[in-house]
Amino acid sequence: MIRLYHVPLSPFCRKVRLVLAEKKIEVELVEERYWEQDPDFMRRNPAGKVPVLRIDDMNLAESTPICEYLEERYPNPTLMPKDAEGRYEVRRLMAWFDDKFHHEVTSKLLYERVNRKLMKSGYPVAANVKSGSKAIKYHLDYMAWLLDRRRWLAGDAMTLADFAAAAHLSALDYTSDVDWNRHEVVKDWYAKIKSRPAFRSLLADHVPSFPPPEHYADLDF
Amino acid sequence: MIRLYHVPLSPFCRKVRLVLAEKKIEVELVEERYWEQDPDFMRRNPAGKVPVLRIDDMNLAESTPICEYLEERYPNPTLMPKDAEGRYEVRRLMAWFDDKFHHEVTSKLLYERVNRKLMKSGYPVAANVKSGSKAIKYHLDYMAWLLDRRRWLAGDAMTLADFAAAAHLSALDYTSDVDWNRHEVVKDWYAKIKSRPAFRSLLADHVPSFPPPEHYADLDF
Repeated sequence: MIRLYHVPLSPFCRKVRLVLAEKKIEVELVEERYWEQDPDFMRRNPAGKVPVLRIDDMNLAESTPICEYLEERYPNPTLMPKDAEGRYEVRRLMAWFDDKFHHEVTSKLLYERVNRKLMKSGYPVAANVKSGSKAIKYHLDYMAWLLDRRRWLAGDAMTLADFAAAAHLSALDYTSDVDWNRHEVVKDWYAKIKSRPAFRSLLADHVPSFPPPEHYADLDF
Repeated sequence: MIRLYHVPLSPFCRKVRLVLAEKKIEVELVEERYWEQDPDFMRRNPAGKVPVLRIDDMNLAESTPICEYLEERYPNPTLMPKDAEGRYEVRRLMAWFDDKFHHEVTSKLLYERVNRKLMKSGYPVAANVKSGSKAIKYHLDYMAWLLDRRRWLAGDAMTLADFAAAAHLSALDYTSDVDWNRHEVVKDWYAKIKSRPAFRSLLADHVPSFPPPEHYADLDF
């Protein structure tokens, strides 16, 4: 049995969960409060982070290398284009969301609102929340610019890039931090990806003492 | 002609330069002081970072996606294993150096000592330098642990992972921040990779007002 050590709202874990589900790979989810640095967990991943995917006696860490591994080993359905230029664009956008978007938006909103409380590391820093709320507008504009030109974020087919983006946005939607009315084309994209069977497990997430807003699991939001 | 916008001591640019040189792809190097946010440069890469690789009228950003693209388009000599597990390990180690090592070591030592002065953003913060000097020991120990078991960092062949690591260590060697006497096996690995023709351009780098130490370009250091 494949096992994923994760936390429910982590965008990096969500990306891996979406890829596993899209490829219909059964997985046992194990919640891992990685900030408590349990010695057993630290042995599985010396970097002390989630996700960690336990598969065939290997412990795989780092979400993008995990997704590339799953894509190579379980190529159906494919989530990568065949041509080098298309593959580059998918990888660039994964890096865009996991580095730049994560730094400017996710870490400033989700981590301030939720992770601080879970990790007992104090109250949200207002300046961070303000900066994240401002930055997400620019990123939604960039997504709209892409989606005006393409059916999916990296081109005409759904790829790992869409799951990387949806992983961040779905976690931020849990805290009501996404203004879906800003761009119809972004809302349409999210409605499409949210209605996939692969998304169901994410929409059922419920973090104790942080109930999701009503629209979170609603396919007609 | 292929063109690379770069700064000489950036580990991300060095990784791309090493891959280009190892694959014998001719490139014109253009130094880009990205922190000055020149409008022409920002058009080439809205993320405002280096490296940017100009190739066939495309502007490619993000060092790891660039390296994967070069590997797919110029597969000889190959810098990736053939099997999914081996490829995963290369990608995991690239992420290890470009995320964890970068955050804990490179940004704390190189950026404090050099980038702050170049960018005129004040004096080095002593607490950061101290933390970086401590963290590099742990990372050298981890490299020694790997190299006790393998000829190269990710296995028995030289891969992108070795270039990712060498890119960081060579930049830190420029500021004399690497204790090569800590582990013979790490020094041997660096001597092997440093003596490759692909390394020559890096060893000829010279940042104005930061002369490199004598051992920096010496193959017998």
